[in-house]
Amino acid sequence: MCQLLGMNCNTPTDIIFSFEGFSKRGGLTDHHTDGFGIGFFEGRGMRLFLDNHPSAQSPVAELVRNYPIKSENVIAHIRKASQGKTTLENTHPFQRELWGEYWLFAHNGHLLNFSPEFEYYQPVGCTDSERALCYLLDKLRRQFPQKPDRQTLCVAIKNIVQEIREFGMFNMILSNGEMLFTHTSTLLYYIVRQMPFGQARLVDEDITIDFNQVTTPNDRVAVIATLPLTNNESWQQMAQNEFAVFHHGMIVYRDCPPSPVYLTKEEGLAIARSVGTAC
Amino acid sequence: MCQLLGMNCNTPTDIIFSFEGFSKRGGLTDHHTDGFGIGFFEGRGMRLFLDNHPSAQSPVAELVRNYPIKSENVIAHIRKASQGKTTLENTHPFQRELWGEYWLFAHNGHLLNFSPEFEYYQPVGCTDSERALCYLLDKLRRQFPQKPDRQTLCVAIKNIVQEIREFGMFNMILSNGEMLFTHTSTLLYYIVRQMPFGQARLVDEDITIDFNQVTTPNDRVAVIATLPLTNNESWQQMAQNEFAVFHHGMIVYRDCPPSPVYLTKEEGLAIARSVGTAC
Repeated sequence: MCQLLGMNCNTPTDIIFSFEGFSKRGGLTDHHTDGFGIGFFEGRGMRLFLDNHPSAQSPVAELVRNYPIKSENVIAHIRKASQGKTTLENTHPFQRELWGEYWLFAHNGHLLNFSPEFEYYQPVGCTDSERALCYLLDKLRRQFPQKPDRQTLCVAIKNIVQEIREFGMFNMILSNGEMLFTHTSTLLYYIVRQMPFGQARLVDEDITIDFNQVTTPNDRVAVIATLPLTNNESWQQMAQNEFAVFHHGMIVYRDCPPSPVYLTKEEGLAIARSVGTAC
Repeated sequence: MCQLLGMNCNTPTDIIFSFEGFSKRGGLTDHHTDGFGIGFFEGRGMRLFLDNHPSAQSPVAELVRNYPIKSENVIAHIRKASQGKTTLENTHPFQRELWGEYWLFAHNGHLLNFSPEFEYYQPVGCTDSERALCYLLDKLRRQFPQKPDRQTLCVAIKNIVQEIREFGMFNMILSNGEMLFTHTSTLLYYIVRQMPFGQARLVDEDITIDFNQVTTPNDRVAVIATLPLTNNESWQQMAQNEFAVFHHGMIVYRDCPPSPVYLTKEEGLAIARSVGTAC
């Protein structure tokens, strides 16, 4: 299964600690990956590192682990291909420009018979994921020739996401460098780190960090991941069909079913296996 | 002054040798740079490395120098900022998608009062260069809802380039991953390496390569650069206002003034200084 990682902060922050653990994963059952990608917003600019080599051995992942790029919004994706060849054009995250902003998108799931018509944005590769991004941006663009206010944008994206999820499993993270939009079909967790800061210990490696040493009192950082990255902090689980938007390190918009359902890790994995995620 | 580097081949080739010398440059008079970028097409995919640190010290440039990414089309740009802050959103090359293909563009020059209206593509940063790319793709898209044949595309791009160059100095390299389009206002050189292969010695470093050791008899590689990268090969100079298109390592389309003018390095530099290139 693929895994997603996102970060949204109120001050530019490096993601090295989280990526250290995340990049060691490739699936939930083994430690091999079939390519990975990570994109960093820096001001209005964006830096996207992609590699079709396993992240544990990739020189690109090694660079990211050692080069403290500070960013307010980051999206990463590691791939455990269940079928097909790993090619660069199918490697997440995918990037496009809308309203003079870069948009970055990564998906974990599988959309069945999702073949919409495109107007402004055409997929370059052949994944359902890139089609989802193109469809989403196409629709936004048709609705809003100019960028709308934040609240309107959140509602509009929520509505499009609700359309897309009718086609199948749609765990996703999307960002325009300002807000970070998430949708959960099966598994997605988040944590908000802010004062008082404590220690955190990675699940995937024997590494502990004391956030008191690397933060200032006003820092607030939200980290979103398919499964918790640390084992001594309280990660919050997103419900099935929950849509949540982060800005400056906190949730600013949320659409959750009235009777939320939370899957166990095993249930989430079982669904991923049954739909044969081709992310 | 900024410098451009491009490569177009008939077989995926790594650019490590050329980039080794190129990344040591930052201007013609000193060896400091203010950021750099390099984009590699791999199949339909693209990998774009950007850094706003000097390429001689950048960990990203170090990665590119040591990681043999094989590509049929590469565009790189190093920046010697004459004014203003170096921000990531203003770092070349710039990338967009058109007709389901990625397009990559780098520019060396200065366009005066070039502020067109945009329809499909909006600049993210504030350079004349990114505006030129957006204008160019906007026009192509309006003329051709679907991708035209190669010859038609070459003529269409030539016509748009001839419009843009009316606004000032416009040395540029553009690629859709298939062909590599170039335009010269002042300085641009190229070399086609093919059988029989020989040795090449970098201008900027004491490094020599024997291409016989790293090629097969059918390989053909065109390298394009602001100034020659090696000092024992015959680089061809492009004329002022020459438009040339490379495909599979050779020129397939060319539009050259009837009385071509070739600038010396000193004349090219003097023009760059006088227009205050803000690339």
